[in-house]
Amino acid sequence: MKALVSIIMGSTSDLPVMEKACKWLNEMEIPFEVNALSAHRTPQAVEKFAREAQGRGIKVIIAGAGMAAALPGVIAASTTLPVIGVPIKGMLDGLDAMLSIVQMPPGIPVATVGVNGAQNAAILAAEIMALADSDIAQKVTRYKAGLGAKIEKANQDLAQVKYDYKVN
Amino acid sequence: MKALVSIIMGSTSDLPVMEKACKWLNEMEIPFEVNALSAHRTPQAVEKFAREAQGRGIKVIIAGAGMAAALPGVIAASTTLPVIGVPIKGMLDGLDAMLSIVQMPPGIPVATVGVNGAQNAAILAAEIMALADSDIAQKVTRYKAGLGAKIEKANQDLAQVKYDYKVN
Amino acid sequence: MKALVSIIMGSTSDLPVMEKACKWLNEMEIPFEVNALSAHRTPQAVEKFAREAQGRGIKVIIAGAGMAAALPGVIAASTTLPVIGVPIKGMLDGLDAMLSIVQMPPGIPVATVGVNGAQNAAILAAEIMALADSDIAQKVTRYKAGLGAKIEKANQDLAQVKYDYKVN
Amino acid sequence: MKALVSIIMGSTSDLPVMEKACKWLNEMEIPFEVNALSAHRTPQAVEKFAREAQGRGIKVIIAGAGMAAALPGVIAASTTLPVIGVPIKGMLDGLDAMLSIVQMPPGIPVATVGVNGAQNAAILAAEIMALADSDIAQKVTRYKAGLGAKIEKANQDLAQVKYDYKVN
Amino acid sequence: MKALVSIIMGSTSDLPVMEKACKWLNEMEIPFEVNALSAHRTPQAVEKFAREAQGRGIKVIIAGAGMAAALPGVIAASTTLPVIGVPIKGMLDGLDAMLSIVQMPPGIPVATVGVNGAQNAAILAAEIMALADSDIAQKVTRYKAGLGAKIEKANQDLAQVKYDYKVN
Amino acid sequence: MKALVSIIMGSTSDLPVMEKACKWLNEMEIPFEVNALSAHRTPQAVEKFAREAQGRGIKVIIAGAGMAAALPGVIAASTTLPVIGVPIKGMLDGLDAMLSIVQMPPGIPVATVGVNGAQNAAILAAEIMALADSDIAQKVTRYKAGLGAKIEKANQDLAQVKYDYKVN
Amino acid sequence: MKALVSIIMGSTSDLPVMEKACKWLNEMEIPFEVNALSAHRTPQAVEKFAREAQGRGIKVIIAGAGMAAALPGVIAASTTLPVIGVPIKGMLDGLDAMLSIVQMPPGIPVATVGVNGAQNAAILAAEIMALADSDIAQKVTRYKAGLGAKIEKANQDLAQVKYDYKVN
Amino acid sequence: MKALVSIIMGSTSDLPVMEKACKWLNEMEIPFEVNALSAHRTPQAVEKFAREAQGRGIKVIIAGAGMAAALPGVIAASTTLPVIGVPIKGMLDGLDAMLSIVQMPPGIPVATVGVNGAQNAAILAAEIMALADSDIAQKVTRYKAGLGAKIEKANQDLAQVKYDYKVN
Repeated sequence: MKALVSIIMGSTSDLPVMEKACKWLNEMEIPFEVNALSAHRTPQAVEKFAREAQGRGIKVIIAGAGMAAALPGVIAASTTLPVIGVPIKGMLDGLDAMLSIVQMPPGIPVATVGVNGAQNAAILAAEIMALADSDIAQKVTRYKAGLGAKIEKANQDLAQVKYDYKVN
Repeated sequence: MKALVSIIMGSTSDLPVMEKACKWLNEMEIPFEVNALSAHRTPQAVEKFAREAQGRGIKVIIAGAGMAAALPGVIAASTTLPVIGVPIKGMLDGLDAMLSIVQMPPGIPVATVGVNGAQNAAILAAEIMALADSDIAQKVTRYKAGLGAKIEKANQDLAQVKYDYKVN
Repeated sequence: MKALVSIIMGSTSDLPVMEKACKWLNEMEIPFEVNALSAHRTPQAVEKFAREAQGRGIKVIIAGAGMAAALPGVIAASTTLPVIGVPIKGMLDGLDAMLSIVQMPPGIPVATVGVNGAQNAAILAAEIMALADSDIAQKVTRYKAGLGAKIEKANQDLAQVKYDYKVN
Repeated sequence: MKALVSIIMGSTSDLPVMEKACKWLNEMEIPFEVNALSAHRTPQAVEKFAREAQGRGIKVIIAGAGMAAALPGVIAASTTLPVIGVPIKGMLDGLDAMLSIVQMPPGIPVATVGVNGAQNAAILAAEIMALADSDIAQKVTRYKAGLGAKIEKANQDLAQVKYDYKVN
Repeated sequence: MKALVSIIMGSTSDLPVMEKACKWLNEMEIPFEVNALSAHRTPQAVEKFAREAQGRGIKVIIAGAGMAAALPGVIAASTTLPVIGVPIKGMLDGLDAMLSIVQMPPGIPVATVGVNGAQNAAILAAEIMALADSDIAQKVTRYKAGLGAKIEKANQDLAQVKYDYKVN
Repeated sequence: MKALVSIIMGSTSDLPVMEKACKWLNEMEIPFEVNALSAHRTPQAVEKFAREAQGRGIKVIIAGAGMAAALPGVIAASTTLPVIGVPIKGMLDGLDAMLSIVQMPPGIPVATVGVNGAQNAAILAAEIMALADSDIAQKVTRYKAGLGAKIEKANQDLAQVKYDYKVN
Repeated sequence: MKALVSIIMGSTSDLPVMEKACKWLNEMEIPFEVNALSAHRTPQAVEKFAREAQGRGIKVIIAGAGMAAALPGVIAASTTLPVIGVPIKGMLDGLDAMLSIVQMPPGIPVATVGVNGAQNAAILAAEIMALADSDIAQKVTRYKAGLGAKIEKANQDLAQVKYDYKVN
Repeated sequence: MKALVSIIMGSTSDLPVMEKACKWLNEMEIPFEVNALSAHRTPQAVEKFAREAQGRGIKVIIAGAGMAAALPGVIAASTTLPVIGVPIKGMLDGLDAMLSIVQMPPGIPVATVGVNGAQNAAILAAEIMALADSDIAQKVTRYKAGLGAKIEKANQDLAQVKYDYKVN
């Protein structure tokens, strides 16, 4: 089993956020790898990773980073694989990380998701791979079709909320 | 008893905020309904709801949403009923939800209240219905007239605060 | 002909923004009045206006204000009519006015629209009045149904944009 | 003993912040009064208060308010006494209150202090009164001269912090 | 020739920004289509478009929107294709659009690029398609490899900048 | 004629803003002086100025500054005179200057007015001096009473705006 | 042993942040001193300190401050030593302190690090001193070379995270 | 003549800002070099540059960058030389660049100056080199001593501003 998605974070302190990507991919039975890399602490390892990822069979890279979050952009600089950036909430409500990731210069895009949005990063990765993988396509279709169920459940819960003038 | 106000939220996690609207309408004896809908998870249900609300006798729609809060605007796109949007506090202090709700394009207004301002949404709904419903008009008039009482009570409390050089 | 909507601004410098409300109401043939009032320069006139508006037949008040935009909230304090607030862009991109208008305390809502969103304020006013005025209701329905035309026109324009690899 | 400073707040929930003004004035033995008023809940009482404050011997008004903090500005609209505004932290880190207070239109200034800066409001009030009251002037001079003491104490504490390479 | 990328905007006023995506795709000889759609003006057309895009052979959708930019998210709600969102600068420096696009709820990601970053959206679309299209893969690889040339050119220009103490 | 108000700025580039204070004081016939000082370029001159201002008969200091606007606070550190700070708009819409001025630590308040609010600073200075100067008091009272005239004039202008459905 | 680095803070409440600088310098065996000074409470002591620091053998000054953080800039005004500013998180997420420190006027730079970034301030101080001190240079080189170890450790930890579809 | 300072920018469009550093160093007769590098377009060249700079005799690196400004941090990752970062104003008033530069993770500081503050970066570089270069030290001392002259000149200009009630 070879990893299709490579999940990168700069520190194990990011794991509680990034695990949401792991869990979703695991439930979808999409093989992935998880590694720590830092644009500022291990720049050469980042570049080596980025250059070699495609050759190892990786299809999409998910990189989570906080503060001056250079990691996703620096990975994107050395690969043509789609790179998804996850801004991780820290000092300034995650706005520092979001701007550091999303405001990339022309030529090197990073697909940015919301603050701490690691699960969405995983889903986006699956949507991307689904273009050429009918098995993943079916999983994504089923997953998105099931999103309504959460709303149905919510409606059942809300039906239990009682007020004299609540008529439903 | 038919609902006059329809309260919509995207998740039961929004209930602690949106219940302030329920409680106020209940105290005013204004019938309402509460449902979960999501612009992103159940888009067709949102559109169906929006198109049919007026026919079911709904007068005002209150929609609470957080983050990229598309729900109020998407409802407003498919109805001519007044839609009141409640930005719900989440990641970025609710500023993301506020801007997503209030900055609507020309043609499709959403009446936006403050972050987590569900009670104010209910009062605004009553003010709107009061234009054509003298019973509700009386209730709103009485309620707003009574707002001063909270300040009177505050003054009584402040009168108990003692300092040597506090002269009142 | 009696005014149904009262448009208030704090200065004639707000007129270029607030005229968008005038124009829309005029096109819809909904009678309105336009006055200047200031929560800070003519506080008593504001209060008198707010208290008497309903008696004069006004249904909805639209108040535009910039900077520390107290006007909409102070009007809302002395009337039970729905008050729509229009934040007017000034020093801080209109964020100061927006927060000053939307973040009202419990009990006194202001229906806030986007920065410089005077046209949307007029449409919202019409949606509110439409609840009890079938003539206005028809106009609003027709107007909103016609919004798609702008998109149709845009598609015709985009069809004229030519690129070798543009296939539509 | 007549109050020289009038401290106004919109709610007893603001008392923990505004008490810092009370305590400082009390320590300086400057008589003050404390009242609750709301620009939105008791607008007429605010105006009456503002018009009459000077006649009652009040020299400076300190008004604390959160969210769409109209109170200081509305008081300033009906008096020529100096009004000091204290933005109170709420939903948006107090930025909403700060902008609502500081960004006053030309003609009606409010002397704004920092978020939750009620003690500084009291000191500013004393500095203002000191211009015509040599007793208060002496107190302010003594107080400000004593500010260095806090730094001296800090230096004593820091002297206790031990590191091998800390040389002082 | 069938479109692989579908570029959507809400108004022809967005064309000067979105044309940067057109131009890049055209240079890369990647077929695309351009249409106007609005989450708020033509909600049913948006949903129909989103549901049918995959069936028509579209691989990636690029949606640009300003203000309360619901369009990318609402498209993402009705398709499993990757949706790239381009926040378009308007009233609040594009921050309103950015937050409205990037802060999507769990389950429905939008791949967000920088404010006005339409060219990067096109490049990201190509990177995504390159996973299953070796022709596009070669083009992306060549394009990204050529990015250094802009820096080489910049160095030649900087070499012309003369100062007495500039040594290169 | 001795100056009662001392207007300080850090650069002649601030003069277009600070002149609004000069003009207002001049119209009110309140003597003032204007000097350039910089907390960062002439720190000793600032301290000397601040220590000596009261002895020279100055009653209120108005200090305008942009960016990391330390000037008002540093003056306030060495005087017990009331110091009014005017944030001057520069790089970040004046938000940097506003926060640098208003967020003073406990003990050393600066009375902050809005961005570029030099005229309001002058009015506030007059309100402060009015407490002990009946001549200035009369001027301020007359000035503030006249503020309504601007609104009256605005209403006359708005009366000239003609629409078929404008009824006033 | 003479101090090479002088660490300044405005209050012992800043010690938990600033101790990170102490600890790092201590581990590197670089002598330092720690003092409390305040631009607003002890302005003359600040100036005296700044003027005399170089003569006492200090090479770099690290100044931490919160809110309207004038301290680093005011120190920089009276010395030619490099001054490193540490914005300390307070009311507004530290954004007030950051802007107050970083936005210095032309002529008097402050080397600003991130919010609460006292450790980085110490490292930057060492990098600066390393230019002329080969002993410190070796320590910095060793320290930065060791930063990768934290990532190696993180990778070992991540290797322990188990999912069925995690392949590494 | 060997360069002591290396000025790096990501694009010639940054030259109008970064030239302020060139000019100041030139006036001070401090040799420098100017090159274009990009963390995202020429990552390997950046790393090579950073690793070799010290060996070539460079003492301080000044790196200017806008948007997701990774350049200063990525340079700092591969050198122990002090790196000064200049946020360059672009889309979001330079706040994106500022946060991307200043919010560095522990271990790899970047000395950040204000938005577009290239001249201050040059001065800071000189202050740093002055620690070990008495010639530069003299220049910096003379330059900073001369800063007061600008204020003197400003006072002469302000002396020409005439008002009837301006007494100086």
